Order: sequence, then structure tokens, then C-alpha cells
Amino acid sequence: MIKSTITELFKIKYPIIQGGMVWVSGYKLAAAVSNAGGLGLIGSGSMYPDMFREHVQKCKKATNKPFGVNIPMIYPNIEELINIIIEENVKIVFTSAGNPKLYTKRLKEHGIIVVHVVSSLKFALKAEEAGVDAIVAEGFEAGGHNGREESTTFTLIPLIQSKIKIPLIAAGGIATGRGMLAAMVLGADGVQVGSRFAASIESSAHENFKNKVVETREGETMLTLKEIAPVRMIKNEFYQELVAYAKSHSVEELKEFLGRRRLKKGMFEGDLKNGMLEIGQIAGMIKNVESAEAIINDMIEEYNVIRSSPLF
Amino acid sequence: MIKSTITELFKIKYPIIQGGMVWVSGYKLAAAVSNAGGLGLIGSGSMYPDMFREHVQKCKKATNKPFGVNIPMIYPNIEELINIIIEENVKIVFTSAGNPKLYTKRLKEHGIIVVHVVSSLKFALKAEEAGVDAIVAEGFEAGGHNGREESTTFTLIPLIQSKIKIPLIAAGGIATGRGMLAAMVLGADGVQVGSRFAASIESSAHENFKNKVVETREGETMLTLKEIAPVRMIKNEFYQELVAYAKSHSVEELKEFLGRRRLKKGMFEGDLKNGMLEIGQIAGMIKNVESAEAIINDMIEEYNVIRSSPLF
Repeated sequence: MIKSTITELFKIKYPIIQGGMVWVSGYKLAAAVSNAGGLGLIGSGSMYPDMFREHVQKCKKATNKPFGVNIPMIYPNIEELINIIIEENVKIVFTSAGNPKLYTKRLKEHGIIVVHVVSSLKFALKAEEAGVDAIVAEGFEAGGHNGREESTTFTLIPLIQSKIKIPLIAAGGIATGRGMLAAMVLGADGVQVGSRFAASIESSAHENFKNKVVETREGETMLTLKEIAPVRMIKNEFYQELVAYAKSHSVEELKEFLGRRRLKKGMFEGDLKNGMLEIGQIAGMIKNVESAEAIINDMIEEYNVIRSSPLF
Repeated sequence: MIKSTITELFKIKYPIIQGGMVWVSGYKLAAAVSNAGGLGLIGSGSMYPDMFREHVQKCKKATNKPFGVNIPMIYPNIEELINIIIEENVKIVFTSAGNPKLYTKRLKEHGIIVVHVVSSLKFALKAEEAGVDAIVAEGFEAGGHNGREESTTFTLIPLIQSKIKIPLIAAGGIATGRGMLAAMVLGADGVQVGSRFAASIESSAHENFKNKVVETREGETMLTLKEIAPVRMIKNEFYQELVAYAKSHSVEELKEFLGRRRLKKGMFEGDLKNGMLEIGQIAGMIKNVESAEAIINDMIEEYNVIRSSPLF
């Protein structure tokens, strides 16, 4: 057990949150993380409302520990998702990609803990003002969608920590106990881990994608699509095609070119060549595909070893 | 006193190295840092050979503590600099921007400690193979020249630490005791601090530049010039002009446009509009212009406070 404002807020054993990720974090991963003492999140971004409800119901059966859901507020049927969350009595909601003022009040009226994901101090302050219970601050090194400021975990966390009063969860570049401890030294009360869980046994991503994450080396991911919304992905054939296309086409054409299919193709169907493969820089440190429980145990063990080293 | 392989290598009190920076780190700053228990570096990049020799001689008079010099290997009169270093009996040399195989052997034959600056694992391994005594690994958040991999301090340090045997100095985003401890948790044996010393009293940068660093907020620096060599600078008028120019001109034209004058104009002459202003992301955390001694004392105090906090 590691006591922090984050473990107290969610009533969990370890301050490790599994990031809600499209095509990756269904109920299997979320329940496995929660059962191992962390906080699992169902990522709604790649689910139709019916499927989302099914995952929430299955998660409730698969764990009696706290779990949550992540909802990107750009989701087309966001109202439907909010209703399902309330109807199904989900206790913890992480909102991202949108204005935290939109749903925080309504969710909190139903006794739901609301956490908002940001990538800059400016939006951290807005989220605090909107009344959220905690903030996830995500650095430039994180996989998937990211901020235009390009602030890294190392500079973002102490800055936000010095300006907000609510609990702070660090994200971006964290996959080990060493990284977890460093994030907490920088001022975080807990950490959100994405990439390492994306490559876990319980992740619903395709085996090809998981193996690709393990093979990914330093410098093989890149933040791109700065014209639309910055996103970090593996530099595969699709990435090269995308970069070339972006040079000679408008933002509208680029949006069309991308669609949503490319992400499914890469991460869920395992087409490593033509699909989009979102992952963080820390993929370069991920050595194998393990269970969520093994990941959490390994992180906690490393955290404790370094915490009791002569450095402290 | 903080004992690490870095304090032992350089025979210094604290594992804090002041980065060698053009137009910033002459003998005044280097001597002040060394006198305060860190390791000061004279940045040769903006000095003609005669002036460099003068700074080395003055530094020897201004401190009886160890100090070093930084030499970018793209320096046009590099051979002359190497000769001055040997003639003036400089004990510590940090090399950057080039192949560490070029001068490491020769410098070491003269009993000089050689450290090489890298921004990726690949070049860290090459530097170790070339026989350097230690490595500086610099993350994406650092000011000035940077790597194409865009690896952040948070992902770069543990990766390099896991693969090399020689001492490792973390750079990029470090300006506080909190950052120093976090870097050491990530696996560094010491830290190199640039931005905060650039804005110190003893820095030879123009007052306008120092005040600008203090005013700089999150998201106001950007890594640009990826077409030539990535460099992080403040997004002032010159930056906007540069970005626009880069879009419609060749790499050769861009090099011509830049020249070396722009950096001097901004950092040394204090023209905040038309000059180039190199600084790191952590500028957003720098609150005032202080002496080098005050900076080091503040960092060590914060380091010790956090190290003995209830978290640990």
C-alpha cells in the first residue's frame, strides 16, 4: 500500500492509474488493473454506446474493486455515454479532449468522482475551476493525442503542482517504478500508465501491435499531425504516407484521409503497415508482453527498491 | 556534500554542472558556479580563440576549484581550441555537436577528463565506446541545440542508464532541487543546469534576455529548425519570421538567413525582437535573476527537503 491523496480519493492500494485508451482498454484490462490494486479505466473512445454499456456491466462483474471510465468529450454521442455512466452507477470518470465545464457539475451531482486530462498549466487551472476532483497532466512523451505546447512531463508536473491545490496524476513516459517515483518527486500524487498496459496480456489490442510496441526503439515514435491535433505514433509506413500527404493537402483533406478507420486497422486489426499505431516514447523501455498484475507488481517492487536506496 | 560518481570524478561538492552556453557562460559564471560547489563550464562556442584563452586564464585566477570548458566540435577553429586547452592545462572538457572519437584520445593522453553531450542512446553508446569519462544526456525540453529523436529527459535518462556503465549527467528541464532529485531517481549521477544559470547575475547574457527568461511562460519556447539542426528558442518575432521563411526556402537559404549574428543580437546585445533567444522549457519555472551561489544553495536545500519528506 502506498498512501497518497490519489489512493485516498479512489480508495485503491497503489497510485497507479491505467490510461483509458482506444482499442486497448476494454473491461478485461480495466478489471485486471483494478484487481491488482491500481485503477483500471475503460476507454470509451472506440466503443459505440451499446458496447460501452456492455463493458461497464462486465467490468462490474469482473472486479469488486473501484474502476473508472475515460470519455473523450469530442465523442459524437457524448450525451448517451453520460446517461449510461449515470444509469450504470459508474463511480469514477476521466474526461479528456474538451471543456471540463460541460459535464463536471452534472456528474458530480450524481456523486461521481471527476478527473480531467490536460497537457498544460492553462487547462489545469480551468479544470480546477470547473470543480474536478483531480487532474491528469500528460507530457509531450505520451502516446496518442497531446498538447500544442509540447511541455514534457519533467517540466509540466512541477509547474502544475506549484499552481493547483487538487491532487495531480502524472502521465507521459511512465512505465516503471523508477518513473513512478521520479514523477512523485516532481510533485505528482499518482501516475497514469498507458503504453505498458497497451502491450499487456489483457489489452484488447492486436497481438501484432503488442509485439510491435515491444520492438519499438528510441526515436521510433513521433508527435505529428500538428495541423489538426498533435498525436504521437509509431513511424511506420502509414506515418510516412501521412507526413507526405500533410505537406500538400489542406487540414480538411487531411481529416478525411485519416478518418477513424486507420487507428482500428493498426491497433485492433494488427495491420502494422497501413494502420495508425499510437504509443508513447517510453515504448523503447518496454521489454515484453505481461499481465496487468505483473506490471503493477514489478512497478511497486522497483519503486520500493529505489525509495530505500542510498539516494534517499 | 552529495556523494556520487560525478562528484568523485570532478572532485566537486555537489553533482551540479553548469551547462556551457554561448553568450552566457564566460569565466565569471563558470568561476561562480565552481566556487559555490558545482562545476562551472566556460562555453567556447561564442568566443574567438584569443578570447577563449583569456577566459580560461581569468577563470584559473577567479577560482581554485575544478572548472571545465565546453567545446562544440563544429567550431571552425577547433584545432586551435584543443591546443589552448592543452597549453592552459584545462582539466575537464565537455565536447558536443560532433563525433566523440575525434579528440577524446588526444585529450585523455594529456590527463584531461572528457565528457560528451548526447541526446540519444545511440550516441551515448558511441561516446562510451570512444572512451569518454562520462555522458551528458540532454532531453527534448533543453534549450539550444537538440536531437532529432525528440526524446525527453523522462524517457532518455532511464534508457541510457540501463545501457551504459560510465557516469551519466541528466540535462534538459532541470532547474530546481526537485528536478535534480527526480533526475537522479531516473538514473542520473548528476545534473547539468542551463536555463537557470543563463538568467543568473554572473551570466554574460544581456539584462533584457535575463528578464525575458524570467517572464517566459509555459509553451513560449519551441523546438524548431528541424530542417537544419533542431534548436529550442523563445517564440519571439524573430522565431515567427524564421518559421515563415523556412516554409518557402531551401536549407541552404535558411542557413544563410540565420547566420551566427542572430544569436549574439538576441542573447548578448539584448534585441528581444530581432535576435534569437535560446532557452529551455523550464524557463517557465524561473522566477528571478539570482547569483550562481544562491541558485546552487536553493537547489541543494530543496533537494534535501524533498529527499526527507514523508513521501519517502
